[in-house]
Amino acid sequence: MAVVMKGSEVANAMKEKMIKEVEALKAKGIAPTLGIVRLGARPDDLAYEKGAVKRCETVGIGSKVFEYPEKITQAELIDEINKINADKTIHGILLFRPLPKHIDENVIKYVISPQKDIDCLNPVNVAKVFEGDESGFAPCTPTAVVEMLDFYNISLEGKRVVVVGRSLVVGKPLAMMLLKKNATVTICHTRTRNLQETCRNAEILIAAAGKAKMVTGDFIPKGGVVVDVGINLDENGNLCGDVDYQAAEGIASHITPVPGGVGTVTSSVLAKHVIKAASAF
Amino acid sequence: MAVVMKGSEVANAMKEKMIKEVEALKAKGIAPTLGIVRLGARPDDLAYEKGAVKRCETVGIGSKVFEYPEKITQAELIDEINKINADKTIHGILLFRPLPKHIDENVIKYVISPQKDIDCLNPVNVAKVFEGDESGFAPCTPTAVVEMLDFYNISLEGKRVVVVGRSLVVGKPLAMMLLKKNATVTICHTRTRNLQETCRNAEILIAAAGKAKMVTGDFIPKGGVVVDVGINLDENGNLCGDVDYQAAEGIASHITPVPGGVGTVTSSVLAKHVIKAASAF
Repeated sequence: MAVVMKGSEVANAMKEKMIKEVEALKAKGIAPTLGIVRLGARPDDLAYEKGAVKRCETVGIGSKVFEYPEKITQAELIDEINKINADKTIHGILLFRPLPKHIDENVIKYVISPQKDIDCLNPVNVAKVFEGDESGFAPCTPTAVVEMLDFYNISLEGKRVVVVGRSLVVGKPLAMMLLKKNATVTICHTRTRNLQETCRNAEILIAAAGKAKMVTGDFIPKGGVVVDVGINLDENGNLCGDVDYQAAEGIASHITPVPGGVGTVTSSVLAKHVIKAASAF
Repeated sequence: MAVVMKGSEVANAMKEKMIKEVEALKAKGIAPTLGIVRLGARPDDLAYEKGAVKRCETVGIGSKVFEYPEKITQAELIDEINKINADKTIHGILLFRPLPKHIDENVIKYVISPQKDIDCLNPVNVAKVFEGDESGFAPCTPTAVVEMLDFYNISLEGKRVVVVGRSLVVGKPLAMMLLKKNATVTICHTRTRNLQETCRNAEILIAAAGKAKMVTGDFIPKGGVVVDVGINLDENGNLCGDVDYQAAEGIASHITPVPGGVGTVTSSVLAKHVIKAASAF
């Protein structure tokens, strides 16, 4: 049976390190603080916010929620973000998306200060991920994948990695981050032919398609590493990943569960990014 | 024998279209003009400049060379670029690189107005290439590859494309552009294991490694398309590509020569980008 790569183990290891880093910052008079910008109060956002605030708390990072009415105008939102940019007590900004329809994300993304843009919305940080420049902030989810592989000592050097999914929040940035670590990366998607064969031929398979259990046993590389980034609901309304876990665990050497896998590490990465932002102050 | 994909044929087809576009712009009172920013007078730069100016001329695009001494300070260069940004008679800016050592390209790249940044130096355009947003400017060389494939009716949809090389000027942006066209893209590089096998398994192989004739017959996919982006000198001092052309032409279905291939299309793309920039004025 495959080694189960548990998000909680990765998160715990990150936590120990972060507690020390936050202490060191506080000794220098810097209290790392996350600013959460939320428009309205969608249940999904509130759930993620609760998790993020708690994760930050456990390592000593403060947080402040900036809640605005959903009907805030674009100009008003820009003003508010500029205030948070200028606010020296806030080090990282998390803006919940999708934004309401009357607000253009393509405008807003330029407004968030690149130095506080801990979830990689500003093109300055997007370009850095693309360029392999690690001085900026990569999106939290693909960074969580890299953290997991790293924690479980899975080398990427020269490995055949197949990423299923080409989204801007996971697939594409992850491909660039893996490339930076010298993996040979293949990016697959809905138009890919022979997807099963391509996946089966990987040494490391990363499923980030957002489609419940689409990666069946036929896709799984024998003795390969399988990372499941998907968070979906199955036919019974239960959380499940993109991978058919039951089928995969007998074929792969390593596998991440859903829930309890990559998703568990994401808010730790967010906290890590707040510390990085605060350290650069 | 393989069909030879000739840069001159692609450039000619682009020329016809561009002449009409420039005429239409001029009828509206806009005279598309390229601004070339050059520090010092390196022979390579002068040769490329000559070609670019001529290519622009043949379609009716004007050009203006801004030559500065190599010892210009970074602050002075920033001032000069800002003047060109504000100059309404200049629509596109080409800045020759590498810059002298005392000037930080990582600073300068932010200075060039994204709207005039026709060779994709500004992170705003870099991020757009990454995001698949075609409203910006992609780098000229990878765009030339896409133009060639398009001209020769080589569909990318669902195709297995292998890109050898992960540079910021060719490999990575090209991978993103091919992905946007629904190819399944594998990015290979110096650390890739089984490079030959991976290349041979491609339907379209793009060599952008910058290493003379490294892609020997063993790499060539039987009946596949081979695009050679390399421009190198061989052991006799003659121009050659990354591909061993003699070996490849008997195996591939289509192949680009060097010289006379992708490089021939690059300055046409530059001209096309000047028109695009002028059209958005």
